[in-house]
Amino acid sequence: MTKILILGGGGMIGQKLARRILDENIFPGADLTLFDRAFPEGGVPAKSITGNITDRDTARHLAAHHPDVIFHLAAIVSGQAEAEFELGWDVNMMATWHLLNALKAEHEKSGRTYRPKLVFTSSIAVFGAPYPDKIGDNFLSAPQTSYGAQKATCELMVSDFSRKGFIDGLSLRLPTICVRPGKPNAAASGFFSGIIREPLNGMEAILPVPDTVRHWHASPRAAARFLTHAATLDTDLLAGRRALNLPGFSCTVAEQIEALRRAAGQKAVDLIKPVPDPAIMAIVDGWPRDFAPDRAIALGFEAEKNFDEIIAVYMEDDLNT
Amino acid sequence: MTKILILGGGGMIGQKLARRILDENIFPGADLTLFDRAFPEGGVPAKSITGNITDRDTARHLAAHHPDVIFHLAAIVSGQAEAEFELGWDVNMMATWHLLNALKAEHEKSGRTYRPKLVFTSSIAVFGAPYPDKIGDNFLSAPQTSYGAQKATCELMVSDFSRKGFIDGLSLRLPTICVRPGKPNAAASGFFSGIIREPLNGMEAILPVPDTVRHWHASPRAAARFLTHAATLDTDLLAGRRALNLPGFSCTVAEQIEALRRAAGQKAVDLIKPVPDPAIMAIVDGWPRDFAPDRAIALGFEAEKNFDEIIAVYMEDDLNT
Repeated sequence: MTKILILGGGGMIGQKLARRILDENIFPGADLTLFDRAFPEGGVPAKSITGNITDRDTARHLAAHHPDVIFHLAAIVSGQAEAEFELGWDVNMMATWHLLNALKAEHEKSGRTYRPKLVFTSSIAVFGAPYPDKIGDNFLSAPQTSYGAQKATCELMVSDFSRKGFIDGLSLRLPTICVRPGKPNAAASGFFSGIIREPLNGMEAILPVPDTVRHWHASPRAAARFLTHAATLDTDLLAGRRALNLPGFSCTVAEQIEALRRAAGQKAVDLIKPVPDPAIMAIVDGWPRDFAPDRAIALGFEAEKNFDEIIAVYMEDDLNT
Repeated sequence: MTKILILGGGGMIGQKLARRILDENIFPGADLTLFDRAFPEGGVPAKSITGNITDRDTARHLAAHHPDVIFHLAAIVSGQAEAEFELGWDVNMMATWHLLNALKAEHEKSGRTYRPKLVFTSSIAVFGAPYPDKIGDNFLSAPQTSYGAQKATCELMVSDFSRKGFIDGLSLRLPTICVRPGKPNAAASGFFSGIIREPLNGMEAILPVPDTVRHWHASPRAAARFLTHAATLDTDLLAGRRALNLPGFSCTVAEQIEALRRAAGQKAVDLIKPVPDPAIMAIVDGWPRDFAPDRAIALGFEAEKNFDEIIAVYMEDDLNT
């Protein structure tokens, strides 16, 4: 039996991951527990614990159950971390610090036998402009947002606690996840999903940037697969560098729109309304556009090979659900 | 009047920096305060506060005095941070976190007018093997020691608090400082100084590694100059990347020994006793050997141009003092 804990298990990726673990039988006899502030109605049927990840006793309580595998997806998003500085550092950094120390305490109490696998979700937000054409595996982390700085800080902690043998952790720098299911949200990156999702649902979508903007995408299905692949990976193969740039697909907005046309016709494309927004353009200008994630590819991580596949995943997994 | 605070002002570099500030009149009318756990007898004559940097009230108390310039050199060294994990993270990370938050609180209390310059001393320990021949300014930080992870974490915090305008900070990744004055110590890097210092003082020195080992050096005088240069630098020139690889001089142990021969003759060289130590060699194998610190050079940071200069600095500043 493998005890699995998903922190942030109520969120979109947490739910996709939980479903994948249950459906694919990746961990034989998986005993799955989800932790989050709240859970969606009609979500994945699994044990759930509702709580606040920033509460130190909560971290101790979760660690005391000795989960074998912990997926740590709990975070507040980039826009909120930028607007609410203290809250961002508290949730996105300090909560991870308390969790790591709670796991270390359990490691020591167990006579150094308990050593959980920890898969931490980081982000391409750990990078900051200016960039090379393709960001390589040795490129510096110089974040230009609080969210990116918090994720990069946690990566360093996860690596050091792992190097010392208290846990066996690694950090996954996820691409932008696209197409996000559900309602439009106010995130600056929201339009990358919105210009596909809304037209496929017969609704109008706003495009606030020129269609020459290039970005780095992977589907929710790929994200769930990255996470389970990381959980079963032999971390000795990481040779001490425990943060990984993951594969994705790099394309322009124009290429996204062409893929939409192939999937749903001109009628869908006509629902995209260009409404230039200089504020969003300024934010997007600071984002990575393309990567050469050689290490992750060599380690067996796989994303979509074109944007048509990314749209097909949305249509199969989320459209009309 | 410029209020200047040196955290770690009792240490070797803190003392060199304090003396430089007083002697060179870099900050007209400098009002200098040193903070440390303890101070050397016969040290630099300046106001001093004795305390523990990990105490949160201490951070608040120091911030409440509104220093205009803060040099943050307080840390426990690499070997101790590796041996005493909790203490290392507490002193080398959490104390900086509390300091930054105390400064932010003063910034806010002052109606956002108080915004101190903070010069944080980081280290080439933020890097981890494998390396390119020369480490460039865009090379990733993947530390392989707790000390390096703690310094890298603080760099991210200093950058984010600066980006938000609470402070105006930057981080200096110092080369190995050589020739360190004073008694031999047990640090794994101690021999780089010891093989010069001990022979110049007529004493035997142990060389635990092959003389082909290459490393990255700058003198204590260069370190003090780096710090004052950073404190007077317009940080807009950093364009948001507030951690700098500093210049140094890269040479092998054999080249160090040839420079010693030129400075003090064969008699001095004969005092170096090779006693190979595989444990030290294993540690040194993980250290950076050479850099191309283009950004810092363009910003006016200067180190010695050869190892003869580094020895001359020791002989002028520290031999027989």
